[in-house]
Amino acid sequence: MLLEKYCFDGSKKPDLKLLPASGREDGADKKQIIRKTADNQTRMQKLQDRLYADGREGLIILLQAMDAAGKDSIVKHVIGGMNPQGVDVYSFKQPSREELAHDFLWRTSKCLPRYGKIAIFNRSYYEDVLVVQVHQMNRSYRMAERIISQSDRQFFEKRYGHIRSYEQYLFENSYRIVKIFLNVSKEKQKERFLERIDMPEKNWKFSHSDLKERAMWEEYQSVYEEVIFKTATKNCPWYVIPADQKWYARYLVSEAILKTLREMNPQYPAMPEEEKRLLSECRQALLGENKLPKAVN
Amino acid sequence: MLLEKYCFDGSKKPDLKLLPASGREDGADKKQIIRKTADNQTRMQKLQDRLYADGREGLIILLQAMDAAGKDSIVKHVIGGMNPQGVDVYSFKQPSREELAHDFLWRTSKCLPRYGKIAIFNRSYYEDVLVVQVHQMNRSYRMAERIISQSDRQFFEKRYGHIRSYEQYLFENSYRIVKIFLNVSKEKQKERFLERIDMPEKNWKFSHSDLKERAMWEEYQSVYEEVIFKTATKNCPWYVIPADQKWYARYLVSEAILKTLREMNPQYPAMPEEEKRLLSECRQALLGENKLPKAVN
Repeated sequence: MLLEKYCFDGSKKPDLKLLPASGREDGADKKQIIRKTADNQTRMQKLQDRLYADGREGLIILLQAMDAAGKDSIVKHVIGGMNPQGVDVYSFKQPSREELAHDFLWRTSKCLPRYGKIAIFNRSYYEDVLVVQVHQMNRSYRMAERIISQSDRQFFEKRYGHIRSYEQYLFENSYRIVKIFLNVSKEKQKERFLERIDMPEKNWKFSHSDLKERAMWEEYQSVYEEVIFKTATKNCPWYVIPADQKWYARYLVSEAILKTLREMNPQYPAMPEEEKRLLSECRQALLGENKLPKAVN
Repeated sequence: MLLEKYCFDGSKKPDLKLLPASGREDGADKKQIIRKTADNQTRMQKLQDRLYADGREGLIILLQAMDAAGKDSIVKHVIGGMNPQGVDVYSFKQPSREELAHDFLWRTSKCLPRYGKIAIFNRSYYEDVLVVQVHQMNRSYRMAERIISQSDRQFFEKRYGHIRSYEQYLFENSYRIVKIFLNVSKEKQKERFLERIDMPEKNWKFSHSDLKERAMWEEYQSVYEEVIFKTATKNCPWYVIPADQKWYARYLVSEAILKTLREMNPQYPAMPEEEKRLLSECRQALLGENKLPKAVN
């Protein structure tokens, strides 16, 4: 399967210089891919309906990427097809002072979906090992001496461990996580930034500070490689999705979600015999417009 | 130190049949103990003030016990002396449906104190390995097959592991936890229950279902022994406090809290030179009632 090529489960480190950002390498045919994505969405909707009715597992879809890689577009066009009653979307921007005054998993933990629901994390606790690491923000953290006195290396290695245990804990507590890294090329980001600057209706998506982050492109790529390698596991792999063509990224993300939903294999709850009998009494009452059965009163 | 006798760090299993529920064994003198407790409270207040100003670590004081062991009394009389601005008290009763539809640490994680503050957990996530285990509530949980298909033994062993990693994670994220088990005798519980039944102003504290739990006393004792043994660690020990005399329990709890606060060793933040200069300008301005210094405008 095509998706496997982009799936990392901890057994090898991704090389972002070698992994394609474009779908051209896969010989993807746009028309066909768009049709396949639509089919996938129909299948996802059916499985989501079961997941919601079953109410035994929660699903987290976690999106990470450089700016302009297409995270919002994934939410709109892939998740958009699902029943919103069963989906919550959370965007995690710069943490507040209140959030910084807690353990780094605090703000996202509060947003875990209830069993049966799906939560989209548009950015996530991974920011705490990505932007924080690239900009060495940890050095100005107010925390206990035993934490601050560590080297940067120790600090982030420990956080990788925290993330691994946390995700394993979630897996063992009826959650599944689909971790997506949208792998956009530097050239494509430039193109999309120019669009955001040139088109008035896209201006709001651009901030001059985006160029500061772009200037650290290489640092980010190398930290992403390490983070993906150190936090990918069999139960909770990372998908490094080519994101230069949005239609292709959407397709692969829908494949990854579908794969996980199928593994979860949700089922409509089976009614206990007692309730089945009651249902059939209700049926009779409705059809004959008789009095409602006693148990309903 | 007396406290050490009651401290469990995972190296040995507590034997609740042998551990005293009464302070008589320690030859405790009531008058003297009450005076010592008052002294401890003064020291705790001073350290709490520093902790709040420092804002670098959070403290969780976690209380577990059989009914009528005196948890509420500890909150009122030991924690009561602290500045309420820096203290939040949470009582965890029977979980709601919403809470049961999440991982078992979800409801307490939301209540973690911000750095500088103290949270009291009156009962806690330990209920999920105590009452849940004694009553085998896990058997009716709606969770994924991989979780439900485990034996009770596997299920709870896994939870012990989850708790150990979680508490270690908190320790490595600027939290300290003081875990208290109030060890009351079955005879003393009977006495206090009778009081709750006989005194109209205490009636509200009693529920006939309390007797059902009392009937499972032996099961609870044995589960407590295991839970304490399996979740006590060097960084996060359990204190098994004799609770038949409230004045003695209060003293030992104040000792445990004080010990931890001292280890945390909070400091008033040192002002940066820049701000120190500003402070001294403010001083001059106030004394001379001159115009405020420029930097204040």
